[in-house]
Formats: sequence, structure tokens, C-alpha cells
Amino acid sequence: MKTLILLRHGESEWNSKNLFTGWVDVDLTPFGEEQARRGGQLLREAGLLPTVVHTSLLTRAVRTGNLALEAADRVWIPATRHWRLNERHYGALQGKEKKATLKEYGEERFQLWRRSYDVPPPPIGPDDEWQVASDPRYAGLTRDLMPRTESLADVIARLLPYWYDVIAPDLLAGQTVLVVAHSNSLRALVAHLDGLSREEVMALNIPTGIPLRYELDENLTPVERGGRYLDPEAAAEGAQAVANQGR
Amino acid sequence: MKTLILLRHGESEWNSKNLFTGWVDVDLTPFGEEQARRGGQLLREAGLLPTVVHTSLLTRAVRTGNLALEAADRVWIPATRHWRLNERHYGALQGKEKKATLKEYGEERFQLWRRSYDVPPPPIGPDDEWQVASDPRYAGLTRDLMPRTESLADVIARLLPYWYDVIAPDLLAGQTVLVVAHSNSLRALVAHLDGLSREEVMALNIPTGIPLRYELDENLTPVERGGRYLDPEAAAEGAQAVANQGR
Repeated sequence: MKTLILLRHGESEWNSKNLFTGWVDVDLTPFGEEQARRGGQLLREAGLLPTVVHTSLLTRAVRTGNLALEAADRVWIPATRHWRLNERHYGALQGKEKKATLKEYGEERFQLWRRSYDVPPPPIGPDDEWQVASDPRYAGLTRDLMPRTESLADVIARLLPYWYDVIAPDLLAGQTVLVVAHSNSLRALVAHLDGLSREEVMALNIPTGIPLRYELDENLTPVERGGRYLDPEAAAEGAQAVANQGR
Repeated sequence: MKTLILLRHGESEWNSKNLFTGWVDVDLTPFGEEQARRGGQLLREAGLLPTVVHTSLLTRAVRTGNLALEAADRVWIPATRHWRLNERHYGALQGKEKKATLKEYGEERFQLWRRSYDVPPPPIGPDDEWQVASDPRYAGLTRDLMPRTESLADVIARLLPYWYDVIAPDLLAGQTVLVVAHSNSLRALVAHLDGLSREEVMALNIPTGIPLRYELDENLTPVERGGRYLDPEAAAEGAQAVANQGR
């Protein structure tokens, strides 16, 4: 049996302000740091000790991984970071307040952009305040690869090469893999693992800071669809809170 | 010109208690955490931004790297951890108080064990309280590779493969390399880089938490012997404090 653990970063400064974040590199709040440590304690209490960690290139995911691994006493495991695990690029919505966006564009468009499968928000402009194309961490992305906006389908497409080429081989080699990422990159991964329909993906909300454990067979098919949260009650509450954002 | 930055971890719980630490995995003190952050601020202020970091497998070095990179806003760079960067294995001295050891064995033997080139302390026993051979982080070390005690010469011998095979190629590829390690693994690296004599190595003390910058030519020879600390005054004070340990 192969073990995969998914962990969404703790609350970020923009989660707490209810802004669309995407690729903007905001840090964790003190509460988000606490959530990350709690995630690591849950791993430790469950005896679920990762042997390798993969994170996005965004500070909130890297630091969530660091803090969780400190709490689990596993800071020394190999760590790999990759833009393919980044949050969905929210295009021109980045930096916008969610309630104001809902009001400006209406419920239907707002929910399409947030939860639809293949409708991306308007693209970010080259001179947008929150444009990150020139950030040195993305120096390896050619201009045609650098997203200007993404739908969930786009995220799945750019995530899968990392799943197949890096994470899957780690799992097949017997590693206990921790992936620390974001609401939409984790929805993308879960959609792939569980073979979710578009409707199922739209209804899926992943809470912050609670490890989600998948046991996978030799074909990397989940033994239990949806996996299992280490703290199911807190996860249900957290998922409901995500669903209510912008209300 | 190739840029290499060496950083000794901040004060650890056993530094502050004046115990021989070696491979025992003690954490940073709050002061040590502060030193690590200050080290990162120095990097940031100097515009000296690492593109890759290598640390030992010991928590105090990993966390120093994490905290310094947070302060330098570079948490997303690739991080590699390896036992070859670990502190010198202090054998049976691990866990012993330095002043008491000085008193028990006398000045000559004490200084030989601490500062000589090739005299290792007595080896650690298989049932010693501070034996770490079964720690999962060393699962990849065969029994014949796992140190039971080390002289500085032993550290140089086990460090050099990592220097030649991993760090040097990174430098030659144009990376700005940060190495976060320990008093003796960094003395070993400096001894190699600067071609120090045995007497010079014995007199060398590396302070905690202050980045030491080396510019290297295409043969990876230092342009300036000894490199340059980013905060030379604090470094001189820190080195003197290390020299006085056990007094």
C-alpha cells in the first residue's frame, strides 16, 4: 500500500482578508502558522511520518510544510518545490476582495470563476500590480508556459506532469509522500486520483491545515475514494467555511 | 566569479548548556532562532540571494536555513540535506558537559579532541544514551559508513565527496550556494577551500549565525583567502566566544 498525504497551507494574510490570492506570494497569518503546526502534530499522533515532501513555490505552502515537519520532528526529509503545485492563477482577480467581486460580477459569474471546471477568470495584464512573471522563482518558466489566468482544467493539465514524473515515482518507490499545496492544486490532484466528475469537483472544498491521507494500490488508485482526513470533524467544518467564502 | 555562502547554525539548546553535541539532534534556542533570522537579514541587506541551499540532516541546521531564508524571502529555493554536512561525531563525549570534560581529562587531551586535526574522541558505545545509528534519517548509511567517532580529518574525508559531487557542480553551474552546517563541518570545508595547514585549522573558529561569503574562481579557488563575513565585527566576537568554550 502506498501512502500519500495532502495538506493545504494554513490561513494566509489574504485568506483572512478574503482576497483572491492565486500566485501572489503572501505569508501565513499567526493562525495559519498554528494550523500548520497542528497539521504536523496530527501526523505525529497518527504515526504517519512522511519520508519526502513536495511543495509549491509559494511561501505559504513552503512554510506550512516547514512548520508541520517541525511539529512532526521530520525537518530533515528531502524537500522539493515546484511551480506545478502552485495555486491556480486567478488572473485579473488577484488582489480583489471576494465579496466586492461577487457584488460587481454577480453570483453566476463569481461561482463560475471560483468553482467551475474550465472557465478561467479574465487574464492578468502585463503591468498588473500583482503580476509575478518577473519573480526570480519563475526564471525557469518560458513566457509561453507562464500562466496569465487558469481554470481548474488548466491546473489539472499543468499539475499532472509533476504527479506522473515526480510524485508517482516516489510513491512507487515506497516513499510516504507529503504534498503541501493549495485549494485548487489539491482539488486538481484529488479530481485526478478519485476520477471526479465536473459536478463533483465543483462541490469539493478542501480545508486548510488538516492532513488528508490516501492509501493507494499498486496502480495508485485510492483504496478509499476521497481519502481520510486525520481530523474529520475539523475537516468538515473547514470545508464548510471554504464553501461559504464570499457570502 | 562563483559565490558560496557558509552559515553555521544559531545557538542550540546544548550550545547554551555547553555540552558536546555532535550528531545528537537538539533544536535551536530562541536566541539561536533570532541569530538565524539575523543571518538571513544580512544576506538580504547585502543583496546576496542564494539560489540553492544545502544543509546537514540535523534539525538545528535545517531550521537555521529555513529561518534565514524566510528573512531573506527565499524559502522557495531548492533545498538539499545530507549527512555528509553533519557536525563532527563526538563519539563518547556526546552529551558530556565541556567544563567537566576538561576537568576530567585535562587541558591537553581536551584541546586535542576539540581542535586537533586527527585525534578522535573515544568511540560511542552501541548502547550509549546518545547513539543515533537507528534514527530513520540515517537509514541510508550502511553500518560501516556510520561514524562512531570522528576527528576533523575524518570529517574532511566524508565531507569532500559531497563538496565535489554536489556543491561544486552547483557553483560551476552558476548557482549562488548557501551551505548551512556546523562548526566542524564548516571548518573542514574552509580547510579544504583555503588549503589550511593543521596549525591553521586548530586556530580556526567559526561563529554562529553570521554568513561567510566566498568568491571563487573557475577552479573554485577563493579569490580572498578566508572569505569575508557579512558582519565582520560580530564574527570576530563570535569566533572569540567559540575559542573560549570550556574555559
